[in-house]
Amino acid sequence: MTPWEVKGKIDYDKLIRDFGTQYISEELINKVAKYTGAVHTLFRRKVFFSHRDFNWILDKYEKGEKFALYTGRGPSGHTHIGHLVPWLMTQHLQEKFGADLYFQMTDDEKFLHDTNLNLKTSTGFTYENALDVIACGFKPEKTFIFSDIEYAKTNYSLAIQIAKNITYSTVKSIFGFNDSINIGMIFFPAIQAAPCFLPSILKQKKIPILIPAAIDQDNYWRGIARAVAPKLGFYKPAQIHSKFLPGLGKWGKMSSSEPETAIFTVDNPEIASKKVMNAFTCGRSTVEEQRKLGGQADICPVYQYFLMLMEPDDQKLQKKYSSCKSGELLCGECKANLSEKVKKFLIEHQRKREKAKDNIYDFMLRD
Amino acid sequence: MTPWEVKGKIDYDKLIRDFGTQYISEELINKVAKYTGAVHTLFRRKVFFSHRDFNWILDKYEKGEKFALYTGRGPSGHTHIGHLVPWLMTQHLQEKFGADLYFQMTDDEKFLHDTNLNLKTSTGFTYENALDVIACGFKPEKTFIFSDIEYAKTNYSLAIQIAKNITYSTVKSIFGFNDSINIGMIFFPAIQAAPCFLPSILKQKKIPILIPAAIDQDNYWRGIARAVAPKLGFYKPAQIHSKFLPGLGKWGKMSSSEPETAIFTVDNPEIASKKVMNAFTCGRSTVEEQRKLGGQADICPVYQYFLMLMEPDDQKLQKKYSSCKSGELLCGECKANLSEKVKKFLIEHQRKREKAKDNIYDFMLRD
Repeated sequence: MTPWEVKGKIDYDKLIRDFGTQYISEELINKVAKYTGAVHTLFRRKVFFSHRDFNWILDKYEKGEKFALYTGRGPSGHTHIGHLVPWLMTQHLQEKFGADLYFQMTDDEKFLHDTNLNLKTSTGFTYENALDVIACGFKPEKTFIFSDIEYAKTNYSLAIQIAKNITYSTVKSIFGFNDSINIGMIFFPAIQAAPCFLPSILKQKKIPILIPAAIDQDNYWRGIARAVAPKLGFYKPAQIHSKFLPGLGKWGKMSSSEPETAIFTVDNPEIASKKVMNAFTCGRSTVEEQRKLGGQADICPVYQYFLMLMEPDDQKLQKKYSSCKSGELLCGECKANLSEKVKKFLIEHQRKREKAKDNIYDFMLRD
Repeated sequence: MTPWEVKGKIDYDKLIRDFGTQYISEELINKVAKYTGAVHTLFRRKVFFSHRDFNWILDKYEKGEKFALYTGRGPSGHTHIGHLVPWLMTQHLQEKFGADLYFQMTDDEKFLHDTNLNLKTSTGFTYENALDVIACGFKPEKTFIFSDIEYAKTNYSLAIQIAKNITYSTVKSIFGFNDSINIGMIFFPAIQAAPCFLPSILKQKKIPILIPAAIDQDNYWRGIARAVAPKLGFYKPAQIHSKFLPGLGKWGKMSSSEPETAIFTVDNPEIASKKVMNAFTCGRSTVEEQRKLGGQADICPVYQYFLMLMEPDDQKLQKKYSSCKSGELLCGECKANLSEKVKKFLIEHQRKREKAKDNIYDFMLRD
């Protein structure tokens, strides 16, 4: 185990085996670096660790065939900093490869899934979340953010072409539906797959697609988009998969449904910094014990915040890792440090987020 | 049995019992006549024979609350004259009650249902069929024809509100789906129900809806639109149901899948008139027998063409009925007469249909 690799209760190796994806190898990382210069932190530290056809995307690029990026967000509430991990990678790829980005806000699915959510609230969060996307530094002329509900004209005609080739049996087995599921949720996988082919439709030529997303999204692309692509005459979408930023409580990915353990991008920075101070760590029971045995950076969620988002400098991260493991750094001090970094991060993000309000419509795709 | 009532292999009384709809009574017809003046042929002859909440629609109208009309067409091919029956009633109601008409072209459903149909052909027929609708004499300022595919922006956001309240179990039992059905077909009932609430959305107030349609469409409205209306705060759509115009072959409704027994609005009038001459009738085996026993107008499809579309004059229809029953009128002569009428009808319809090309876009609803 190296200090560069996220581990935790989630067995990522098992996910790779179960889903049948490939590890992002050193060789592949070096191939990317030919175009990006320095290797991105999230590749270097294996936060993006798995892929499908990423090598194929790079081969296409080498031959002069540019790819488009597609990722998205289910706008059921405010963005938390865990959501930013794939977006920051996406921004990096847009910048280095000059790629167009299609960003889907699945406000329809959130509305269909959540009994208490109305349509207006759902599309409202689309715009709130779009500010966070824009704050990541995407280029307006190459970024097309759309609400499923508002962009339905184009989306629906593409989705029915996909839907025609997908049976209820298929979505039932992929998503574990039973017959009491509502018929909107059943159709939704076709809507979710549509952006894989949208660039090809809009540009009227086959365009390779790369999806950076957390690994739990893989089943959408494997079972739906990749399955129908050949039938519809499109390329299968390629993917790179990230690990999850853990929540501040005991293990598990950061989740909006546990607000006290999630850091939202709109949180007051002081309050967010207090949440960090209350975080669960993998320190020992007593100071004495910790001095003697050392901390457990390898499995500690607080350490993962530094690794995934808050400490881009490898030397400093290495130092943090060593001083935790040696028992020199205690959890309180470590959290105080993270808390400061989170505060600064949020102040800066919120400045950019506020600025995004001036030109949000430059980023929104309409039909 | 009166000469005014369509009968045939379809047991319409059983349909009323099975579906739980109401007969359109003499009393109700007289109530309509208060607003329309003369009773429309299709009511008088019980071609429109069944309803749900039609009395409620008239009560609302009496109290100053105007209703909107909604009907539609699955544009899988050219219009045949059987399709015109509900449209002519709809046109009459628009004229007499000053009602807006929302006319849905379900090109999405036709595309999803028919393996061999592509998207372009499907929307192409939307425009072809719209010409026939317009030729029926609707008012452009009160008529809103839309393609499901092209009007998806508004339609989809309404459909997901419906879909959220409809489970797979429900559509499975209504439409007899099994798990190998494609997920577009599963969602489609929500799209089909959406226009019931569209006028209320567009006008931002609750608007009563009356759907004139053939009775086989009832399950859409009963199981879907009427079921969800109260949950979404809309009125349940009212309906009036028509019988089917039979095909020219042996019994059964006119169907596009048997082109030699269907009269299409775009048929060359000479060819259509030949199709009529080849029609199946309920005449006797020999001339002698027919002179002796008389024909069977009550159950003869050819007679039904006069009754439903081609002979608006009650006295002339009565005469035709009597002379058939008495054995005076033989099938050949009767068909020659119908064939002339069909030819004239098509020439006139095609003239109006051609003229509709000049202003089709005045009728199309876009979002």
